[in-house]
Amino acid sequence: MAHPTGKALILLGDGLGDRPVADLGGKTPLEAAQTPNLDRLAALGECGLMDPIRPGVPAGSDTAHLSMLGYNPYESYTGRGPLEALGVGMDVRRGDLAFRCNFATVEPQPDGSLLIVDRRAGRIAEGTAELAAAVNALPPMDGVQFILRESIEHRAALLMRGDGLDACVSDADPHAEGAAVAVVEGRTEAAQRTAGTLNAWVRKTYEALDEHPVNVQRRAAGLKPANIILPRGCGVAPHLKPFSEQWGVRGALVVEVGLIKGLGRYLDMTVADVPGATGGYDTDEIALAKATLEALHEHEFVLCNLKSPDLAGHDGNAEAKVRCCAQLDRLVGHVLDHVDLEATAIAVAGDHSTPVSVRDHSGDPLPLAIAGQGVRTDAVAAFGERPCATGGLGRIVGHDLLSVLMNLIGAAEKYGA
Amino acid sequence: MAHPTGKALILLGDGLGDRPVADLGGKTPLEAAQTPNLDRLAALGECGLMDPIRPGVPAGSDTAHLSMLGYNPYESYTGRGPLEALGVGMDVRRGDLAFRCNFATVEPQPDGSLLIVDRRAGRIAEGTAELAAAVNALPPMDGVQFILRESIEHRAALLMRGDGLDACVSDADPHAEGAAVAVVEGRTEAAQRTAGTLNAWVRKTYEALDEHPVNVQRRAAGLKPANIILPRGCGVAPHLKPFSEQWGVRGALVVEVGLIKGLGRYLDMTVADVPGATGGYDTDEIALAKATLEALHEHEFVLCNLKSPDLAGHDGNAEAKVRCCAQLDRLVGHVLDHVDLEATAIAVAGDHSTPVSVRDHSGDPLPLAIAGQGVRTDAVAAFGERPCATGGLGRIVGHDLLSVLMNLIGAAEKYGA
Repeated sequence: MAHPTGKALILLGDGLGDRPVADLGGKTPLEAAQTPNLDRLAALGECGLMDPIRPGVPAGSDTAHLSMLGYNPYESYTGRGPLEALGVGMDVRRGDLAFRCNFATVEPQPDGSLLIVDRRAGRIAEGTAELAAAVNALPPMDGVQFILRESIEHRAALLMRGDGLDACVSDADPHAEGAAVAVVEGRTEAAQRTAGTLNAWVRKTYEALDEHPVNVQRRAAGLKPANIILPRGCGVAPHLKPFSEQWGVRGALVVEVGLIKGLGRYLDMTVADVPGATGGYDTDEIALAKATLEALHEHEFVLCNLKSPDLAGHDGNAEAKVRCCAQLDRLVGHVLDHVDLEATAIAVAGDHSTPVSVRDHSGDPLPLAIAGQGVRTDAVAAFGERPCATGGLGRIVGHDLLSVLMNLIGAAEKYGA
Repeated sequence: MAHPTGKALILLGDGLGDRPVADLGGKTPLEAAQTPNLDRLAALGECGLMDPIRPGVPAGSDTAHLSMLGYNPYESYTGRGPLEALGVGMDVRRGDLAFRCNFATVEPQPDGSLLIVDRRAGRIAEGTAELAAAVNALPPMDGVQFILRESIEHRAALLMRGDGLDACVSDADPHAEGAAVAVVEGRTEAAQRTAGTLNAWVRKTYEALDEHPVNVQRRAAGLKPANIILPRGCGVAPHLKPFSEQWGVRGALVVEVGLIKGLGRYLDMTVADVPGATGGYDTDEIALAKATLEALHEHEFVLCNLKSPDLAGHDGNAEAKVRCCAQLDRLVGHVLDHVDLEATAIAVAGDHSTPVSVRDHSGDPLPLAIAGQGVRTDAVAAFGERPCATGGLGRIVGHDLLSVLMNLIGAAEKYGA
């Protein structure tokens, strides 16, 4: 274990980065917002730009957080399946195969094949928990355990757990209506058995669901039955070291998004449950700040993420994003007022950019400020995309951020003699 | 071979990088020092920050120099064993297995096992050369040659040379007293034979040393005998191309540290022997400068390292470090006064940071200035951590420095058509 001489914090505005907005006089929402606390942090510290993955690559929240927790995203990200499963609260274990799934509607054909009538089973809204329970009652097949968990609407996640599984399998979902359920194929010799088992399971889900009371009721109400599970996007749960083994310090997450909570649990980090943290515009940012301070007692590292700026970005609402930046400012101000900067290194940034003009994640770099223990200050005194670009940190990638912080608090391992 | 149109120089202050020091008014030692020559170089050239390995990762002197000599440290560093052996002047060859060793004291048990009484043989100070000679007189075992070289006190380095060796072997040193000598285990099928041979050799060292005259004398004087060799930390000497093959130019080192001299010899570089270069605070920095200029006659590339700033960092002595920065300034000044900047590219930096507040290597980036042939100048006119952060070079990694210099002097290979 390392012997840190201080504590480290990352405070994030989700989707914080943005582009110039004409309605804001050419400023970004963050530049336009009144952010006295963020500016204070920038003035006290050192600023720069951060690319969550690499310059120009739009990051997902999952890959961005993996990266900022110090795991090389190109080595540790094995597709959406495992993280989606984590996001719905499943107990994903290293080596599990994970799939995204749809509840779908199929019709049996005279030749015995199953034809896709609706890939989303009429966007089924209710009853999927009962349907998943029926599928989970199926016995293991070929020694493989199948675990399904419903998500919102027609979506679900599936885990395959057992020996000798191989992730190189194609989708059962043909990604088109009017087509037959696709036969899963093993893309390698080693994946043949996995594919065969999965094909058999998909057929069994039809048998378990077609006459299920939920579907009997749906048919009676003129709705399409959700009578099969179609897995796609297979990924293997990556063999990532738990956070405390990777970094030699105890880590906690104070976040609002299920996907990131799941990632934290997978890394054996403490995941705080914060009353008042809604993940929406109405979230209680001071509750998040207090939970962060609380987590600092028992952990050397805490990451806190305020979700709201990302919502405003997706909504394309510049004024809302300005308000969310002020919300982040209050969160950071509360933390700043209650920590000892002589013994704490605090980084403030975003996880990725969600410009209001794009209404989606973009690959624009993020503003970054680091203040506190060991920091070489620079001349930047305002926290924003363009002020930070002139700062002393230069331009780093997200994957290096945790190393930078661990170095400041004396918890970095020397590479070499 | 490349056809350079000039010569390239790297002048390093070992452990040069630092953090703000309260006693220096919040300046770093380098910022606080009077460094007219370094400032002249910065003004004439282009500045930036350099991470020897990656942002936040504390580098060893070995990995930092590997990196700055243009070898990717993550590909070329295979552990301390080979570099320690190089550091004590051994003729390490590509493919050799290298170990760090202790002379230790063991007592035979009734069951034939050997119990560790003292892992350091009472910190034996004299006689280890004779003991090593006795061990080296043992015949090869299983076709494997063993070569031991004593270092300071109880320390030694060991090479295994032969066909079919595999580095995946555990330590003979149990890292605890009161335990038996550990049975070396092969962690892979391929390493089983290597482990077996090493176990047999360790036993033989006991037989060769237990009654050796040095130990007879030690027992008579009430001292613990150094009657066994305990290898640990196996690494394979990496298959690095010689410097001249890697870069197409002739390279020389003017350095004070054995470890780096050994690395240079391993890369078939010329390693200068500089009278007056003590590696201490009292070193003759002008002698180093003169040796650098001398080496430039026969080589297109010279790296010079002044050790003293690192000593001051480890000593936690800010005032001493300020003086060492002035020493580096005189070294650089002498070089600047005697080279043709129209036909020379000179980089000045550190190999890693050793902040006086940390008293050890840290992962803080280094100030970097490059002046001379082909350089695009910038507005920075002072050489220091924070002035350099605003320079035109931005933030680079050490592994790219040699490419940058080779490019300036027209010795870089084109990548592509």
